[in-house]
Amino acid sequence: MPTITAFESSPDRGRGLARDMAVRWAFEELGQPYDVRLVSFAEMKQPPHLALQPFGQIPTLEEGGLALFESGAIVLHLAERHPGLLPDEADGRARAIAWMFAALVTVQAPIVEREAFLLMEQDRPWFEARLPLLDDRVRTRLAQLSRRLGDADWLDGGFSAGDLLMVNVLRRPAGAAMLPEFPNLAAYVARGEARPAFRRAFDAQHAVFLAAPGG
Amino acid sequence: MPTITAFESSPDRGRGLARDMAVRWAFEELGQPYDVRLVSFAEMKQPPHLALQPFGQIPTLEEGGLALFESGAIVLHLAERHPGLLPDEADGRARAIAWMFAALVTVQAPIVEREAFLLMEQDRPWFEARLPLLDDRVRTRLAQLSRRLGDADWLDGGFSAGDLLMVNVLRRPAGAAMLPEFPNLAAYVARGEARPAFRRAFDAQHAVFLAAPGG
Repeated sequence: MPTITAFESSPDRGRGLARDMAVRWAFEELGQPYDVRLVSFAEMKQPPHLALQPFGQIPTLEEGGLALFESGAIVLHLAERHPGLLPDEADGRARAIAWMFAALVTVQAPIVEREAFLLMEQDRPWFEARLPLLDDRVRTRLAQLSRRLGDADWLDGGFSAGDLLMVNVLRRPAGAAMLPEFPNLAAYVARGEARPAFRRAFDAQHAVFLAAPGG
Repeated sequence: MPTITAFESSPDRGRGLARDMAVRWAFEELGQPYDVRLVSFAEMKQPPHLALQPFGQIPTLEEGGLALFESGAIVLHLAERHPGLLPDEADGRARAIAWMFAALVTVQAPIVEREAFLLMEQDRPWFEARLPLLDDRVRTRLAQLSRRLGDADWLDGGFSAGDLLMVNVLRRPAGAAMLPEFPNLAAYVARGEARPAFRRAFDAQHAVFLAAPGG
């Protein structure tokens, strides 16, 4: 059975914001079983984990002789091998993959930048003055995405791996804080979170938090 | 013939740092012809271009009825349809795609963050105090990548689309400034730049700059 890695003790306290969430959600959408191996922060920086993940992060995927990293690559690998997350038709499939890259590269970058700033520079003298610059970068991307989505349910036809990754990125607090300004994006995220596969993935990672010491 | 978009007047003054470079390089590695349609900054923010690229960026790909955006997605689309940038074997192919995501998500993020900071906050009172934080983030990623590359020529066996995107990301000045600290990465980038397909792509985008007013 394919095995992924996830935080033994997730810094998000089970809110489904760690990078294993997208991979769990993909397994659930595809109806495929998976195992989870929990790793500590100390283990993530040791040679055995670095052999799987050179940047010392989670998740990884091990399946037979294959070891993969990068949540986008893992979701794409799964989506290519099981039906449900990519259109059959070649052009639609290429567009869904474009939305995967758009989520993880173009939309995620300013969200993660704002998130890291809130986490690591809150006590710096420049914090108050600089925060609006980062807010504007996130807002610019969300406005462009909102305009493209319009009143559609999903980004390009039916729900795809592109929507899975985009909803996952928009759920990060540094982006979610601005969703009330974009009601169609807020509804889009809510539609994603209402999917039974999302709920199963969310509950599975939340159970890890509840079982952990202090959870 | 497939048509991509590129800057009519590139802010990098023909140094091959605009996002069309990776796509041009992929076409050259695959031995496939392509056309280029140049767009101005004003055009990029207008509805016809936004219909192709919702974030108002370049490059895009138009080919028959298909319109694609995100340079990673375009390179992957081309690499899937023509031999030369992905291994035939399934596991090697999945790993090459993982390196594509690693380049554009994990390695690029701190490089682009440092680049934007240098470009847009040089006259802010916090510039001097904050720059070392960004240097450290880039250095951390480069050290991890350097450790993984070791004395290999490419990231995983033969040259792949993963190497193409990684070399392209490492060429950005905010990353390249630190390459002297990592001689194996500097040699890796030089190997990429020495490829005839890289040279052809570089010369093609440089010719656009030379032909432009002020070029």
